[in-house]
Amino acid sequence: MRITGGFWKIRQHVNGEATLGHALEWMDELGWTGNFTTVANGAGSRERKGREFSDSEVYKIVEAMSWEHGRSPAAGLDARIEALTADIAAAQAEDGYLSTAFGRDWQRPRHSDLAWGHELYCTGHLLQAAVARTRTAGEGPLLEVARRAADHVCEVFGLDGTGICGHPEIETALVEFARLTGEQRYLDQAALFVDRRGHRSLPAHEFGWSYFNDDVPVRKATVLRGHAVRSLYLACGAVDVAVETGDDDLLGAVAAQFDRTWARRTHITGGMGSRHQDEAFGEDFVLPADRAYAETCAGVATVMLAQRLLLATGENRYADIVDRVLHNVIATAIDDDGRSFFYANTLHQRTPAQPPTGGERLDVSGGLRAPWFEVSCCLPNTARLLASLSSYLVTADDTGLRLHQYADSDVETTLADGRPAGLRVRTSYPDDGDVAVRVTRSGGNPWSISLRVPEWATGAVLVVDHERRPVAPGDAVVTRDWAVGEEIRLELPMRPRFTWPDPRIDAVRGCVAVERGPLVLCAESLGESDLDALRVCTGHGPEPSGDGAVVRARFDASPDSAWPYGEPSGRPGAPVALHLTPYHRWARRGPSTMRVWMPTA
Amino acid sequence: MRITGGFWKIRQHVNGEATLGHALEWMDELGWTGNFTTVANGAGSRERKGREFSDSEVYKIVEAMSWEHGRSPAAGLDARIEALTADIAAAQAEDGYLSTAFGRDWQRPRHSDLAWGHELYCTGHLLQAAVARTRTAGEGPLLEVARRAADHVCEVFGLDGTGICGHPEIETALVEFARLTGEQRYLDQAALFVDRRGHRSLPAHEFGWSYFNDDVPVRKATVLRGHAVRSLYLACGAVDVAVETGDDDLLGAVAAQFDRTWARRTHITGGMGSRHQDEAFGEDFVLPADRAYAETCAGVATVMLAQRLLLATGENRYADIVDRVLHNVIATAIDDDGRSFFYANTLHQRTPAQPPTGGERLDVSGGLRAPWFEVSCCLPNTARLLASLSSYLVTADDTGLRLHQYADSDVETTLADGRPAGLRVRTSYPDDGDVAVRVTRSGGNPWSISLRVPEWATGAVLVVDHERRPVAPGDAVVTRDWAVGEEIRLELPMRPRFTWPDPRIDAVRGCVAVERGPLVLCAESLGESDLDALRVCTGHGPEPSGDGAVVRARFDASPDSAWPYGEPSGRPGAPVALHLTPYHRWARRGPSTMRVWMPTA
Repeated sequence: MRITGGFWKIRQHVNGEATLGHALEWMDELGWTGNFTTVANGAGSRERKGREFSDSEVYKIVEAMSWEHGRSPAAGLDARIEALTADIAAAQAEDGYLSTAFGRDWQRPRHSDLAWGHELYCTGHLLQAAVARTRTAGEGPLLEVARRAADHVCEVFGLDGTGICGHPEIETALVEFARLTGEQRYLDQAALFVDRRGHRSLPAHEFGWSYFNDDVPVRKATVLRGHAVRSLYLACGAVDVAVETGDDDLLGAVAAQFDRTWARRTHITGGMGSRHQDEAFGEDFVLPADRAYAETCAGVATVMLAQRLLLATGENRYADIVDRVLHNVIATAIDDDGRSFFYANTLHQRTPAQPPTGGERLDVSGGLRAPWFEVSCCLPNTARLLASLSSYLVTADDTGLRLHQYADSDVETTLADGRPAGLRVRTSYPDDGDVAVRVTRSGGNPWSISLRVPEWATGAVLVVDHERRPVAPGDAVVTRDWAVGEEIRLELPMRPRFTWPDPRIDAVRGCVAVERGPLVLCAESLGESDLDALRVCTGHGPEPSGDGAVVRARFDASPDSAWPYGEPSGRPGAPVALHLTPYHRWARRGPSTMRVWMPTA
Repeated sequence: MRITGGFWKIRQHVNGEATLGHALEWMDELGWTGNFTTVANGAGSRERKGREFSDSEVYKIVEAMSWEHGRSPAAGLDARIEALTADIAAAQAEDGYLSTAFGRDWQRPRHSDLAWGHELYCTGHLLQAAVARTRTAGEGPLLEVARRAADHVCEVFGLDGTGICGHPEIETALVEFARLTGEQRYLDQAALFVDRRGHRSLPAHEFGWSYFNDDVPVRKATVLRGHAVRSLYLACGAVDVAVETGDDDLLGAVAAQFDRTWARRTHITGGMGSRHQDEAFGEDFVLPADRAYAETCAGVATVMLAQRLLLATGENRYADIVDRVLHNVIATAIDDDGRSFFYANTLHQRTPAQPPTGGERLDVSGGLRAPWFEVSCCLPNTARLLASLSSYLVTADDTGLRLHQYADSDVETTLADGRPAGLRVRTSYPDDGDVAVRVTRSGGNPWSISLRVPEWATGAVLVVDHERRPVAPGDAVVTRDWAVGEEIRLELPMRPRFTWPDPRIDAVRGCVAVERGPLVLCAESLGESDLDALRVCTGHGPEPSGDGAVVRARFDASPDSAWPYGEPSGRPGAPVALHLTPYHRWARRGPSTMRVWMPTA
């Protein structure tokens, strides 16, 4: 599976050419990569750099480099991975334990702070890096390091052990590692960690046990809650365990939690997390546009979880979710040059972001893509997703191929019964809704090509043998004995549409959004409009305009007063045409104001 | 000036009888009071309890006890103050430095962490305690401790020194101490601190220098920003400096900042601070009801600042502000028994608060009054305000007396020219709007009685000699040669009223609130109504009902869906009568849901 052009190819290219190197430069400069050498050298040099979880950023970037090397092999990249692996290996203890932050005589003891120490979290990312490296370059030293680290985890935290990590991640990583190595013990350990959580074994915290998802057992929870990334990573691990052990109860529980979260705790962009204080989900329907947190890492984690649920259930609505999050969170987070990124993804910028002047640390919620933050999980996290994005596009099953995400791409695979199957996809999605699919390999006997028709795509048409068939949201399936060169075409309607919020979402009452295909649009102003005054006239439009839309709107003046509560106020302005652009493109032309949710006139 | 009955007398009584002892019990139990003895005993026992600012809570409670002893003298209280003073004095260093957290050989060095160490902040509260003690009991040992501490501050941080405290407080305290002692050096030092802030001398922080108000000099700022309590305390100190030095530019700058903050960054209750993450002001018009922070301490600080501006400018609108904050923040924060309190004051409780089960730390934003929080500034802060509340009611000037706040009360004073003046006020305010004022002392020659007519009181009537005169919001003034026994009466209209938000407040668009006199009302449900579904019909009412109101309302069903964005939804319910009660009374009958801002039908 290869992405060969278009929207995501550009982003994969920038990721490989710019982001990976950029992240490594920062981590070298800040000493995060150097920590491995420092501890390997022992007591001579004891100053450790970065936060307690900085090892994980190095592992994430090694994972991203590994996927990238698989996507686009390069000797320099390979050498850098090997060099980093050597540094990492040198820091590993005799017994397999690996952390630059704990365990040496000048550091806190191993596992003395499970709630905040992030040791198992870091180990999880090490395992994922090793999975990526092994899958793209074969067995090598990183796999050995990971195996020893994983074995150590099993020895310490196995059946006779206790304890969970404050930040889930090891669970999904251990299952991935079990799949790679075929070792049951890693799967068993993951299952132990999943079942061990939710019993308040971590210390009490002001944010509550829900912060760690340690408030309620995974099987009993009804919704995702607490720290969004923690909650989503845990859910990924639980799905992985459920799938590998055939535990349908566990799978059903997590799917129900995610479905409820999607229905009540998710921003229109697919962004999750509405609280800045603890980077957490809000209560049901607490989804402020202006204080949306929607952490980029939560977007990555949502893609991971939705894809797992798609694979586990076959329900294409999870692919709709991946589509939405990719185009409105992931595509938004990274700057065009791949060298700066959003940590939090607000849906409403009231005043133009102010670039920091000398020395000021960047606020993650400042509405500004930044080269780096003190906590910079989001950039390496997005890098590993982009480098491995082709794996999210297509699945194969007994009957044929299912296309879930649309991009210029080539697929070559073998179906379950051993027959070859291949497709070439050509599309300008999401700018345009036409998707042409040509058969490039076929081995005789009928097999099916299934194309996802997104939930928003009412009026879609499938063109087969020049015949136009209306197709409903869901799966459009054509089964036949495909000949190489045959082509079908899906036409998704890309007319922009108004979208209203559930009335229980207080924060955006009286507002409307405009979407176009999978894209959430926004109004952005570089100073020419006062978006506080914007009122959209919904009796008309929206009309298509480029890859955006035009709506009729007013700018109503609000007179200032000494106290902002009293009689109704506001003076209607004259209707004008307002151009809306894709949300993911905002804040790329300089400091601006922006609204996704626009008050109605 | 004494409060003799009614709404605030009850609260002063509970404060004196319950809250002071309750707070002391907690601080004894947690070791915060014991820290003074521990450090006085030296190296033998080195474990310090509580956060780095816990000394300040002890000082605040000594201040509260001192005011209470002045209000209602009691030998036990006096003895407890003396005992605490002895403990505090024992912990003071030879050179006057006083902190239980810094400076001993097993602690961090003095002033090594100005941003977060809170040493000067604590000293400020020590000075305020000494002011209260001296004003109510005369000079004594606490004054000596405070004088030595203040002198030490002047020596270290004087003209030749540098540095400011991360948490303003010392500024206003030094001016109060200068007024008490007549010592110019304390005023000079306060002025130095005020002018020294805003030059980014504190270390950079993720929340930005605005968190400390160290981003822009006080004279140049245009609005309060950053951490709400820090910003308000600093403004108090700046007003104090301005008044004592005749610096009208500084006074004007702070007044303009506060006015803009009141117009754009204040909840309808008068609560300030809309961000949980950094306990900070939001941007203009970012005032979410459900995530309102509105810290109780910010309410105390707003009362302090507004009263200072009232005294400095004579503008009664600042007394309106004190009125609003007292009745809707301060009265809300403390439970009826005086033994539990809100730290944050939400305007919208979606789900009933869940009392913590064993071991879980209380989230300050949990919609729950709690006996204590890890950071428990709010209870002692409210205690010192309530114990000294009588000083907020009346002012005297050359021409007579001005009544700013209405409570059953007795005033006896001497006018500027030496004539005696006395009033007895009788009212059921805020339950009722009638205020009867009888002259109890008068010394010949005309003098004036001025009664505040609040901004909301359109249609108010002043009854003088049985003659009813309409009076407009502002000051209703009667000047005459008063005879003892003469009475005038102000009738404030207490009909409930709808209040709409400025359209720029996105969070409460399409909502209305109901107010009655100075009271913000709310809808509260102990389970009988689903307040998420509430829609108020504004074509009718609100009608008075007890001390609350009745509105016509619907409960509209919102069907659940897998994704909360799409076509408009909602099924109107049948109109019913809904009873609203004062906001300050919410959450006193068990876990409940509550709304101040109610969507309109």
